[in-house]
Amino acid sequence: MDHVTPGQDASGSLMYRVERPVYHEGFIQTQLLHKKERTPKSIGQRLKEQLRCSSERAKSILFGFLPILTWLPSYPVREYLFGDVVSGISTGVMQLPQGLAYAMLAAVPPVYGLYSSFYPVLLYTFFGTSRHISIGTFAVISLMIGGVAVREAPDSMFYVQVLNGTNSSTVLDTEARDARRVQVAVAVTCMVGIIQLALGMLRFGFVAIYLTEPLVRGFTTAASVHVLISQLKYLLGVKTSRFSGPLSAVYSVVAVLKDITSTNITTLLMGLVCIVFLYGVKDINDRFKKKLPVPIPGEIIVVIVLTGVSYGMQLHENYKVDVVGTIPTGLLPPVVPDLSVIPNVITDAVAIAIVAFSMGISLAKTFALKHGYRVDGNQELIALGVSNLASSFFHTFVVTASMSRSLVQESTGGKTQIAGLLASLVVLLVVLAIGFVFEPLPQTVLGAIITVNLVGMFKQLKDIPALWRTSKIELAIWLVSFIASVLLGLDYGLLVAIGFAILTVIYRTQSPKSIILGQIPDTGLYCDVEEYEEATEYKGIKIFHTNTSIYFANSELYVSALKEKTGVDPTLLLAARKSRLKKEKKRRKEKEAREQGTPQERKAVVKLDVEKGVTHELVGEAELQKNGHIAEALADSDSEETCSFLEPLSPVHSIILDFTPVNFIDSVGAKAIKSVIKEYAEIDVHVFLAGCSRNLLEHLTTLNFFGGKVSPEQVFPTIHDAVLHCQHQEAHFSDQQEGGVRGEAE
Amino acid sequence: MDHVTPGQDASGSLMYRVERPVYHEGFIQTQLLHKKERTPKSIGQRLKEQLRCSSERAKSILFGFLPILTWLPSYPVREYLFGDVVSGISTGVMQLPQGLAYAMLAAVPPVYGLYSSFYPVLLYTFFGTSRHISIGTFAVISLMIGGVAVREAPDSMFYVQVLNGTNSSTVLDTEARDARRVQVAVAVTCMVGIIQLALGMLRFGFVAIYLTEPLVRGFTTAASVHVLISQLKYLLGVKTSRFSGPLSAVYSVVAVLKDITSTNITTLLMGLVCIVFLYGVKDINDRFKKKLPVPIPGEIIVVIVLTGVSYGMQLHENYKVDVVGTIPTGLLPPVVPDLSVIPNVITDAVAIAIVAFSMGISLAKTFALKHGYRVDGNQELIALGVSNLASSFFHTFVVTASMSRSLVQESTGGKTQIAGLLASLVVLLVVLAIGFVFEPLPQTVLGAIITVNLVGMFKQLKDIPALWRTSKIELAIWLVSFIASVLLGLDYGLLVAIGFAILTVIYRTQSPKSIILGQIPDTGLYCDVEEYEEATEYKGIKIFHTNTSIYFANSELYVSALKEKTGVDPTLLLAARKSRLKKEKKRRKEKEAREQGTPQERKAVVKLDVEKGVTHELVGEAELQKNGHIAEALADSDSEETCSFLEPLSPVHSIILDFTPVNFIDSVGAKAIKSVIKEYAEIDVHVFLAGCSRNLLEHLTTLNFFGGKVSPEQVFPTIHDAVLHCQHQEAHFSDQQEGGVRGEAE
Repeated sequence: MDHVTPGQDASGSLMYRVERPVYHEGFIQTQLLHKKERTPKSIGQRLKEQLRCSSERAKSILFGFLPILTWLPSYPVREYLFGDVVSGISTGVMQLPQGLAYAMLAAVPPVYGLYSSFYPVLLYTFFGTSRHISIGTFAVISLMIGGVAVREAPDSMFYVQVLNGTNSSTVLDTEARDARRVQVAVAVTCMVGIIQLALGMLRFGFVAIYLTEPLVRGFTTAASVHVLISQLKYLLGVKTSRFSGPLSAVYSVVAVLKDITSTNITTLLMGLVCIVFLYGVKDINDRFKKKLPVPIPGEIIVVIVLTGVSYGMQLHENYKVDVVGTIPTGLLPPVVPDLSVIPNVITDAVAIAIVAFSMGISLAKTFALKHGYRVDGNQELIALGVSNLASSFFHTFVVTASMSRSLVQESTGGKTQIAGLLASLVVLLVVLAIGFVFEPLPQTVLGAIITVNLVGMFKQLKDIPALWRTSKIELAIWLVSFIASVLLGLDYGLLVAIGFAILTVIYRTQSPKSIILGQIPDTGLYCDVEEYEEATEYKGIKIFHTNTSIYFANSELYVSALKEKTGVDPTLLLAARKSRLKKEKKRRKEKEAREQGTPQERKAVVKLDVEKGVTHELVGEAELQKNGHIAEALADSDSEETCSFLEPLSPVHSIILDFTPVNFIDSVGAKAIKSVIKEYAEIDVHVFLAGCSRNLLEHLTTLNFFGGKVSPEQVFPTIHDAVLHCQHQEAHFSDQQEGGVRGEAE
Repeated sequence: MDHVTPGQDASGSLMYRVERPVYHEGFIQTQLLHKKERTPKSIGQRLKEQLRCSSERAKSILFGFLPILTWLPSYPVREYLFGDVVSGISTGVMQLPQGLAYAMLAAVPPVYGLYSSFYPVLLYTFFGTSRHISIGTFAVISLMIGGVAVREAPDSMFYVQVLNGTNSSTVLDTEARDARRVQVAVAVTCMVGIIQLALGMLRFGFVAIYLTEPLVRGFTTAASVHVLISQLKYLLGVKTSRFSGPLSAVYSVVAVLKDITSTNITTLLMGLVCIVFLYGVKDINDRFKKKLPVPIPGEIIVVIVLTGVSYGMQLHENYKVDVVGTIPTGLLPPVVPDLSVIPNVITDAVAIAIVAFSMGISLAKTFALKHGYRVDGNQELIALGVSNLASSFFHTFVVTASMSRSLVQESTGGKTQIAGLLASLVVLLVVLAIGFVFEPLPQTVLGAIITVNLVGMFKQLKDIPALWRTSKIELAIWLVSFIASVLLGLDYGLLVAIGFAILTVIYRTQSPKSIILGQIPDTGLYCDVEEYEEATEYKGIKIFHTNTSIYFANSELYVSALKEKTGVDPTLLLAARKSRLKKEKKRRKEKEAREQGTPQERKAVVKLDVEKGVTHELVGEAELQKNGHIAEALADSDSEETCSFLEPLSPVHSIILDFTPVNFIDSVGAKAIKSVIKEYAEIDVHVFLAGCSRNLLEHLTTLNFFGGKVSPEQVFPTIHDAVLHCQHQEAHFSDQQEGGVRGEAE
């Protein structure tokens, strides 16, 4: 009887053929489908499986926690080592100037940037799952750290009275200030490590998913603005204090502009020359990517040359150029971070932890996809957490992967984290042996390095026109993230941006597109009647489609869209009917009064009919026609009004709700749909549901949706089933009616 | 050629018949469907329409703003007036004791409760669209007001030094304190009015939708807990001060328990008697609802009787029973509220405004549905706003609809707000003439009235088991709302609850159910293969279904669920292939070394084949078979390993993504899908999309989804179309292959 055949027709095109009875859920649930029997595992069994302990399991846990064990033993020395060495040295050479520069952003003395470019990089080699990312200092994170450090140890706390002969003057004790800032930065780093480690252990790697791409790009662009503003003073050689908190960007610019007259021309010129040179090198590296064996290390060249120049010309003494200053040789002994500031910085730590992770994981995933291996988000969290936590005992600040370094590490032939290891050793060498060499390096050079590294970030401003064309909502996320982060600071900005991104999802469910569907003739396919010429509606049937699930925040919108789009509003129609009935009643009374002595019987019938009010109109009509008295009475009255009285309340007899887009429904939504079905029933409009997923049907059953006026017989697997049913029912009904009238007539 | 016929088969059941070519989007978009041409309205036209000014429009705006104009002129005096008078007096008689009692909750002297039961009720008559709700004092709102009043004017602010002969003692200046609390309450009320009015004007009535039912019920239950705790001291006659803010509930209980020894037995007994009596009356009213013409006004009886008893027995003097105290006769002249406290109470005002509105609108909608008329959410906001704002000049606190009173107003025959008007006049009469009579009323009686009114609220605790059965998520909302509101106070509690409710929506999109579909034989319908016996899969085709839209927060979950459920993971398969190729290469090299002097040609071919790596496997196989050298070489080697080398990477050749549940997609989601399609292409698995809505397709096009490896030819209108296509393609392909092999053989 039923048959479905894939096959070709005469003309050779592949045919879609389905022939089967029209199904409704009443039939499907009881006869067509049978649930598989499944014996759920007992809790005991499950626990047993969970707690099963074997050497295999232990090994897999150990290997998971220390991924180096999986790849180092089979390290193909001949194939990989050369690439890793070249890559490691290139990256290490970048770590050096960046470490010095980003320490400035983190508001700590430069040498701490070198520490941060050594310890965590070393540790990541053991714990990380990515083979190509270069862990180390990163502008955005350093800036966030710096913000906290400045807030917790502002300049104003460190003015001391200095007795200068007889007059005492107030002097900023920069040494005490910097020491305190290091303490704060290290404490934040320790906390960040703990948070990342905990999130990783708890398998919470998914938190990064809330940082959607437009959000991150808007955020990092805002961070670049902050970084650029923070570098203005170094590039100009102006001495202003650093601000933190909301509107700090504005304050900083104002402060620099106020002191613009004190610009040190030597500093400015040197900065500009560096910027032009570095930008040129960057450009050359990009252009001749394929021809150059390794990219030209512009940053280290600038650092070395200008250190030499500065030393030779005694820039610091002769031209008052600010230089890096003391860089102690050797490493510091480990110290337990000062945890007393933790309560003040806990929220910052959460923000930094998440941002750092999200930067790292997105880079790691990009490279993994490119080279066809897999990174584990949770293990990456653990790796970063361990790196930050352990290193914080050695006076480092938070690290993560940096885009620019990672690209160099990968493009110079790095195959594994052996490259990262070597890079960290390069830094160690400098710290142990020749760190002091960089003491005369002008700060403006570091400012120039930071500035040029921002160029890529600022290119993200091009997102605005691109997003404008593709998605207004994502543009809104980008802009909110950018503006909030620029104005409120990176921490609050991130919070606002995440909140906003979440709200856009709610907004999408609340601003669905509601349409009426019509069939594309002879296909069983349905589409928007307003949009497409081919879509044709059936007389008396409205198919309503809204692309959203139904729940508390949009169930009212759903119902009102339904009434508006179908043009059938039960309240209005009922009110109209009431007023018509009332008029009718009044007129008849008047007429009766005029005629005097109306038969009691007729009055009773009319009253009955009026009081029923909410009955099946068509049945009512049939009854009316059968009813001799009324027909007689009506024949007397004004024909136009009678027609309107007899008319069905609505030209629509059936409404089909397309439930294919409904992924979930809550009790509020289920109640709303149930009550709208009841409302329509009062004006004799049948409501059917089509395309419910089986999952949704089960949920509707749990919510006691079926019962009363709603039965599974009103639910159809496809729109087309429902349409066929409606047509059939209506045809059947008119037949009956005609038959009835004919019966009367005979 | 195509035909679709609704009709019946021989056995009489309605048939579903569709016969048409298999369509894909490439065909649909270019040939099947044509967009209707539409000339969008110019901005000028639209503005014109918006700004069109006519007397009709003015009239409709006026009628909208003052709904009384629509119904009062046609008020059917004969039909409605009697019911309205009975209802008005019954409600007025309830307003009196409730006004006195809820003033205690609002931490202001009782007479202000009477003012609040007059002015706003009067005003609502003119502006409200609901015919049945009874505006006036309400426990939850009064408590929230009281919380603010106590916070802004705590006892500790009003201790004054009193010189008592030679010793000075510290005494609480209750008069100054109460005056200040009234100021605060009035200021909050003014602000609430402004907020509600503004929201109404801006058509922001929809804000109430975020207060989903479980949230509101949890919240009001929590409020009842707070109310009950606040009444303990009155019922016991213990004198403790009132707390506000987080954990105030705990502090209050602790304070009362500490002073439990100072319980006034007379007060306690009187309170208990009242509670028992009131509860009995409530019960009788419920049981004999239909037989009683009007409910027994238990509250006013208790008030009158116990005022008499208290006066006669001089309870205040003889038994130290706390009584209501001074009730001035007459009204106070209007005063502009003290706006200086506004900055401190703005957030409270927002919370109170929204809660008050949401209570009002939900009751109004219930009655409107029951009686078949319509209430306008925005006009209700305006009505409440005007009532609160204007009344605040006359020393009232915030009002809204009360469930208990509204039920009485409706059940005693109230048809319109004429009943509300009369109720307010009853209150006015008392205020003007006999207010002082209630001065000896013991406070414990009011406590009893409040307590008994809470019974209904506490019944909401039954929601917990009911929600446990129907929806765990909604239970979570209920519990979070309840617990947060009890512990953090009503304001923060509400905030937390709303935040949580919004997050549940996100959670629902992130915890979708992923399933593999199979066809119910010969129906073109597809359902879960794990769940249903009838669902059958096709060899080599996996149909993946997840009930969610795809966007930033779940696109990764989507992709990993896809890989897990289909059992086809490109990374793993590619890695396996790589290692197989490597082994193969090694073995051949060894073999060649053993054989010595291998032909250069053969080596080259093998190398070519190995380096291609990521080519079409089946084509590769065919090529291999055609290639004489290789076939020879392979014949020599270990047959088992060769088989695994020749095997297609995955037994699945096609994956169909069911996109019917995808209501929206963002750029992150589109990228994720596109990249997974590419990944699968590398292991020769074709991915098809089925059931995209036209809206989604347009969006995908804007997001540049099509292009590269993804074409509209991969998109099918239904799953069945896609399945037929896959089967056809596969069959066609194997035919060709066989043909090819045969060709070689011949």
